[in-house]
Amino acid sequence: MRQTKLPLLSNAPQGGTKQLDVPPRLLLGAGPSNVHARVLQALSTQVIGHLDPVFVDLMGEIQQLLRYLCQTKNAVTLPLSGTGSAAMEAAIANTIEPGDRLLVGVNGYFGARICEIASRYDAEVRRLEKPWGKVFDLNEIREGLERHRPAVLALVHGETSTGALQPLSGIGELCREHNTLLLVDSVTSLGSVPLYVDAWGIDVCYSASQKCLSAAPGVAPITLSQRAIQKRNNRSMRVRSWYLDTVLLEQYWGEEHRYHHTAPINLNYALRESMRMVVEEGLSECWQRHRNNAELLWIGLSDLDLDCYVEADYRLPSLTTIRVPQGINDRAVARYLLTHYNIEIGLGLGELAGKIWRVGLMGFNSRAENVTLLLTAFEEALQNAR
Amino acid sequence: MRQTKLPLLSNAPQGGTKQLDVPPRLLLGAGPSNVHARVLQALSTQVIGHLDPVFVDLMGEIQQLLRYLCQTKNAVTLPLSGTGSAAMEAAIANTIEPGDRLLVGVNGYFGARICEIASRYDAEVRRLEKPWGKVFDLNEIREGLERHRPAVLALVHGETSTGALQPLSGIGELCREHNTLLLVDSVTSLGSVPLYVDAWGIDVCYSASQKCLSAAPGVAPITLSQRAIQKRNNRSMRVRSWYLDTVLLEQYWGEEHRYHHTAPINLNYALRESMRMVVEEGLSECWQRHRNNAELLWIGLSDLDLDCYVEADYRLPSLTTIRVPQGINDRAVARYLLTHYNIEIGLGLGELAGKIWRVGLMGFNSRAENVTLLLTAFEEALQNAR
Repeated sequence: MRQTKLPLLSNAPQGGTKQLDVPPRLLLGAGPSNVHARVLQALSTQVIGHLDPVFVDLMGEIQQLLRYLCQTKNAVTLPLSGTGSAAMEAAIANTIEPGDRLLVGVNGYFGARICEIASRYDAEVRRLEKPWGKVFDLNEIREGLERHRPAVLALVHGETSTGALQPLSGIGELCREHNTLLLVDSVTSLGSVPLYVDAWGIDVCYSASQKCLSAAPGVAPITLSQRAIQKRNNRSMRVRSWYLDTVLLEQYWGEEHRYHHTAPINLNYALRESMRMVVEEGLSECWQRHRNNAELLWIGLSDLDLDCYVEADYRLPSLTTIRVPQGINDRAVARYLLTHYNIEIGLGLGELAGKIWRVGLMGFNSRAENVTLLLTAFEEALQNAR
Repeated sequence: MRQTKLPLLSNAPQGGTKQLDVPPRLLLGAGPSNVHARVLQALSTQVIGHLDPVFVDLMGEIQQLLRYLCQTKNAVTLPLSGTGSAAMEAAIANTIEPGDRLLVGVNGYFGARICEIASRYDAEVRRLEKPWGKVFDLNEIREGLERHRPAVLALVHGETSTGALQPLSGIGELCREHNTLLLVDSVTSLGSVPLYVDAWGIDVCYSASQKCLSAAPGVAPITLSQRAIQKRNNRSMRVRSWYLDTVLLEQYWGEEHRYHHTAPINLNYALRESMRMVVEEGLSECWQRHRNNAELLWIGLSDLDLDCYVEADYRLPSLTTIRVPQGINDRAVARYLLTHYNIEIGLGLGELAGKIWRVGLMGFNSRAENVTLLLTAFEEALQNAR
């Protein structure tokens, strides 16, 4: 055997790197959320092959669990091998052909992101605007559809930048009247509030693993209705992104189980376990828990004379936005919580930077003890943060 | 508090799903490879935020480790939040503008995949063809560059479909003479054979976490030279894929640490740990180990009267392809190994389906005990598989 030492042209990082040692954060920001010990254990289960018959069985279970979470019977319901942002891009890439008109409800950062991505896919983007933190009512949606006649309407169910919950009931019917597909971002809503993909006539819905499902970040559920698949199948050109092409993903996740890419095996283990836990609790009970703990938080904030940014009727239970009072440094409060309590909260994003904090009670983290600790620590931080 | 039970319109999967229970596979196929206990432990470390100062420090370390693995000083060296296939798409999306001529060395399945993805990005794709299992010599590359005058030349360093190792030394110089960018797929080579991104003048190089690095699947290293960045920065239109746009990824992975998407925190923990282990061993020693164990395998196969598909000079140490002897059912042998020994090996892909097996000795799995077990089990399987 050849034993000549192969030369290296550059060296390893000087001093090496230390053993992984991360602080025990309580993640009460805009996501990710903490992961339950059961989910961590599933995550660290040894890898098996992406075409192993045992993994193929798990794939089927994951799809069934996702259908339950989304309240859908859609055949094409699967976890993409990327984050929620990849799923946003996939939703657009698979529904939009160049020149298709897309009407986007823009009332926060993520509505604007949809516009940005869609413009890269050469959609004709129209914006239905509303101040950040507000939501659209049925009349506004109807007028938008009548005025713009879009091929696709995109709405953000839970706006992670504002904490507003967009009501969706009735919009699917309006979209059908106008021969429009309904695309919904449920990144911060899936698993925490009622969401009925089929009953509400949602054609494309995507989410993420690391928010209200409390799985590890890096996979993202997506589901497509028959109408969405029909539009996709009638395309004159292929979906531009090969990696996110649901035609190819279906061949892997469907009965054919044809190789497309190596699925993130461990992330799928974790997603499955987190969804099993939702099944054990019951989806309806899980929604109710998110609501109950959010209300505890809202009462406590009110006791501290803090104002929620979103009016009560449209408040996301999974993510509460709090107005930064006059004279308080938002960053100093967040830093105090991180330094003294290992608690992460979120700052404002985009045009709400400096104006709000974002407090998430998502999935596993939606627990009364977290609310109590946060309120106590927050009160202290307000007094001490400089 | 409202306690009305929220209605569900469809139920959880009947009978529920069982606790995760996967068999202890020895993954000697075309990837993924098994993950070391240290890497699994890192993987299951609790999530922290993607902008947490502690994670930001880890990001810097991961980039340093990747530079060592790639033997590069490239500033833009980072793990993409997707699999190796996403990295292939990213490499193309960030270098190709519509109409750019791309010359692809096609001597296997993954060269053909580069063509497929590039055509979706409206590259003018030219193919430099060679029979599967063969490699290109410098003269063939020179002639190809002179004839096609491409903006980008793409080559697959380790062809996962054939087991051939494309020599790269000298090609960077040729590409510079022709004002061509050199794009290299190192999915099945990085960490197992000498690869000098800077010294060889590679402009875009990407890999995957789950092969010779033995980290969990779902993140994928990519590195860009200054020439590649210059071409990207001179684009007349944005990179089409928002998720894979390295302009935006740089803002997150660079000093600015600006939010782009939620990084797969745990997969990055795992990748870091697997690279720490390479540092401890020494990269050069790691290459040598892959070579030594591959040679053990090749000798053993020869003793079994089995022929390697690729000639010895161009054989990938990380992936050996074996001709299926006349009268032997390739699937029956693989099934025997899986059923009786929990060993996964790969079957032929594309035009080599039915003609070869693919045996990987990648990263953690490149160990003498695995070679011994495989050879013994393989001999038995050949005698017993029906």
